[in-house]
Amino acid sequence: MEEKLKLLKEKLAEIQSLSSIGAVLSWDQNTYMPTGGAAGRGEQQAILGKIAHEMATSDELGKLLDELKPYAEQLDPDSDDSRLIKVSAKDYDRTKRIPQEFVIEQSRVTTLSYSAWAEARQKNDYSIFEPHLEKVVDLNQRYAAFFPEFEHPYDALLDGFEPGMKTDDVKFIFNTIRPQQVELIQKISESQQVDDSFLHQHFEEDKQWAFGEEVITKFGYDWNRGRQDKAPHPFTISFNSDDVRITTRVNPEFYNPMLFGTMHECGHALYNLGINPELEKYGMGGGASLAIHESQSRLWENLVGRSFPFWQHFYPRLQEVFPTQLGNIGLDTFYKGINKVQPSLIRVEADEATYNLHIMLRLELEIAMIEGKAAIKDLPEIWNAKMQEYLGVTPPTDALGVLQDVHWSYGMMGYFSTYALGNLVSAQWWELIDKQIPNMEDQIRTGEFGELLGWLRENVHIHGRKFEPQELVQRVTGSKIDPNPYLRYLNKKYSEVYGL
Amino acid sequence: MEEKLKLLKEKLAEIQSLSSIGAVLSWDQNTYMPTGGAAGRGEQQAILGKIAHEMATSDELGKLLDELKPYAEQLDPDSDDSRLIKVSAKDYDRTKRIPQEFVIEQSRVTTLSYSAWAEARQKNDYSIFEPHLEKVVDLNQRYAAFFPEFEHPYDALLDGFEPGMKTDDVKFIFNTIRPQQVELIQKISESQQVDDSFLHQHFEEDKQWAFGEEVITKFGYDWNRGRQDKAPHPFTISFNSDDVRITTRVNPEFYNPMLFGTMHECGHALYNLGINPELEKYGMGGGASLAIHESQSRLWENLVGRSFPFWQHFYPRLQEVFPTQLGNIGLDTFYKGINKVQPSLIRVEADEATYNLHIMLRLELEIAMIEGKAAIKDLPEIWNAKMQEYLGVTPPTDALGVLQDVHWSYGMMGYFSTYALGNLVSAQWWELIDKQIPNMEDQIRTGEFGELLGWLRENVHIHGRKFEPQELVQRVTGSKIDPNPYLRYLNKKYSEVYGL
Repeated sequence: MEEKLKLLKEKLAEIQSLSSIGAVLSWDQNTYMPTGGAAGRGEQQAILGKIAHEMATSDELGKLLDELKPYAEQLDPDSDDSRLIKVSAKDYDRTKRIPQEFVIEQSRVTTLSYSAWAEARQKNDYSIFEPHLEKVVDLNQRYAAFFPEFEHPYDALLDGFEPGMKTDDVKFIFNTIRPQQVELIQKISESQQVDDSFLHQHFEEDKQWAFGEEVITKFGYDWNRGRQDKAPHPFTISFNSDDVRITTRVNPEFYNPMLFGTMHECGHALYNLGINPELEKYGMGGGASLAIHESQSRLWENLVGRSFPFWQHFYPRLQEVFPTQLGNIGLDTFYKGINKVQPSLIRVEADEATYNLHIMLRLELEIAMIEGKAAIKDLPEIWNAKMQEYLGVTPPTDALGVLQDVHWSYGMMGYFSTYALGNLVSAQWWELIDKQIPNMEDQIRTGEFGELLGWLRENVHIHGRKFEPQELVQRVTGSKIDPNPYLRYLNKKYSEVYGL
Repeated sequence: MEEKLKLLKEKLAEIQSLSSIGAVLSWDQNTYMPTGGAAGRGEQQAILGKIAHEMATSDELGKLLDELKPYAEQLDPDSDDSRLIKVSAKDYDRTKRIPQEFVIEQSRVTTLSYSAWAEARQKNDYSIFEPHLEKVVDLNQRYAAFFPEFEHPYDALLDGFEPGMKTDDVKFIFNTIRPQQVELIQKISESQQVDDSFLHQHFEEDKQWAFGEEVITKFGYDWNRGRQDKAPHPFTISFNSDDVRITTRVNPEFYNPMLFGTMHECGHALYNLGINPELEKYGMGGGASLAIHESQSRLWENLVGRSFPFWQHFYPRLQEVFPTQLGNIGLDTFYKGINKVQPSLIRVEADEATYNLHIMLRLELEIAMIEGKAAIKDLPEIWNAKMQEYLGVTPPTDALGVLQDVHWSYGMMGYFSTYALGNLVSAQWWELIDKQIPNMEDQIRTGEFGELLGWLRENVHIHGRKFEPQELVQRVTGSKIDPNPYLRYLNKKYSEVYGL
């Protein structure tokens, strides 16, 4: 059996290498590729995808996994090898169930729907996107039907991003937080608004860049094992355990996007860099789920990067870098400014207090679409009504409403909730960290992040996707994903910022 | 047969796509990859190489090619399809003859020999490299033995870089030019040396960069289909007909390397960008041979970029960019300075008059090694003696002598002569261009390069590697590779510069 396990690992390592080659192609495409390179890049990705798919669904791999299943049962169920066999068998099964023709149709539909979405958003004309969205919903319904064992078709979609997570669980969590978040926002809106006008000035791009890199160097980002480049839509990408790159964008007229974006992506990268290379090598890297990944990016961006102790350390330095812009702005004012809450139309620009509400709205719409309970043509109307209900704002145009996100045009449904779940989990980690590292705040106040990173590595990063997300959270914190720490965190923070 | 041809093209397109994916990986490795990424990158290249090799040597491909051979004979022998079948059959045969074990051994030997060479050069100790060079020579002898149909084993090596070129042809050409180049250098050394001290000053990196890009934009380099980045060892790389990238290095204390390097690489890139995409797609891009490629880079770098008319146009602009450095330097002085001839130790820094002699020396040594007529241990001595004979200089150390080039440590023999042949061919094109575009000099004097690029595209670029190099030169110029145009060019130029 050891021989078969060795053979399995060889095959998985090849599949993982091919997948990481695709990542290099994507990184280049999103950073440096000249426009003319697009068609050729598409062909490269197509042939690579075809070969990887053949390898990932080969009968030989299936046979190996079948033969190894009883062996996995004999091993310690938490051992790397046992988990490797089980997770790989699940991967194999998921991939194998999707017929090649479906994959081709999916690719064709989403290529068209993406262009249609871009045009619809640009022209603020939902009717251009509507027929394509119909097809995307149909595709997702058919995809879900390949997995009849799930109770709810949306479970099958969720499972692709959050293994093991159920629609009912997510609904329950969101139903818990919605009224409390709505109430908090209501209270804030009745308070004196904080000033953040000083963040909207000219901040030199190269100085923003250098300060951002200074911060994440202190976080522990290793420049021998990564790099930062510009990209229109920031992302983190892993080629292997020793080459995990981040990207960011710089707005010279608004300070927030670059720095908080850089800290966010660094959080993702530190996760990938901390995964056991012996898991990563065989396709068990990547992280437990999108929510767990987001729990890392949000933790560094918000729990650390928007905290008072963090700025006690870094603010004098930032004032040195931008003396004209920030020389006369006190630490308190700055801290409140970067934590300003204001219900707004666009998810990606939302603050910590309102962000989850954007997600809930999308989740509800997606479930309704998949269940066939929402007519696609009515979507803008439903969207706007919910925006008014949750956030008290109504999009003046569909471009600023239902057309704002790219995800559906890519064919992705079941993805959005991972963003909100990530927020919740980040606060769960933080409550535990605060207990287990009692002087955490003092460390941050002196720019020390080594012990924090060590804790995350040991408890979260190292495992890769060996454990399912709920299982991982349970193992570390003693309970499943729990919205209460995040609610406590929000209430505490905004009580300070807004004197509630 | 049309069906089979279609199938062949599909297979060749896949192999070409895989090869171009390898190119993306190499580009990244040589520009932006963090040091930690090296091991993972090696694994990516290994699996990609393995898959590409399997596809390129598959029995199915072999059968298709066999079946199509008679069909190719019925077609117009100059048609794309006929050539595609023939060239692909030759590729298949070459790849198929090399056993997998040999490829693995080659990879193992050259990985070690590269490290040994780097250490030997750094420590100036040839004895560290010597045993590895023995192995490299042995590998090349064994490689040549896989192709017993060649008269001379060195022919088999040459054929890998210059299809169809014979050792005797190269020797004959080099024997023609050597005495004349040696005589020219002798005459120059007896003349008043020109001043180029003004090129050795501080030139701001960003201004060098911008001016270089300004020049190649005028050459017709299309930034939608390429880009320029920094690399320690400049290179051009093609991903497909619409994404051909160049790299350069900038020396802030010496003006020449960046600009002339940029023009050189741009020459390579314009070639790749000009190849018929219908050839490129099926692996028939890349250029007729390394010499033909070098004929393009040298043409733009030297025939154009070091010409007087070129600087009549660009020098006022360059003086604007660098007023402090060049404001008081006249055009004549500048022109002579960039064309200074000085026998020196290092090939890559050699001027147009001495460059070929560096190559001849290497060719003679390589032939002697492959024939077993030069003892590897005596190489430094032979090297130094020939340097004295051809160039009148003797390397004070082996690091500045026999250890200067990386090529042998990579296992490559048969490569060097393509550099010199490229110089010769560039002048052959130029003599013809001068006849067919009578006002070429005037066009250059006004910064117009469109007609020149059009001529090169139509006569050289478009064909990709459809024709062998000698065949291509014969078709275009009416004679095979001929050293006389280059000799005429050198004599004319240096008569002016040195008033011979």
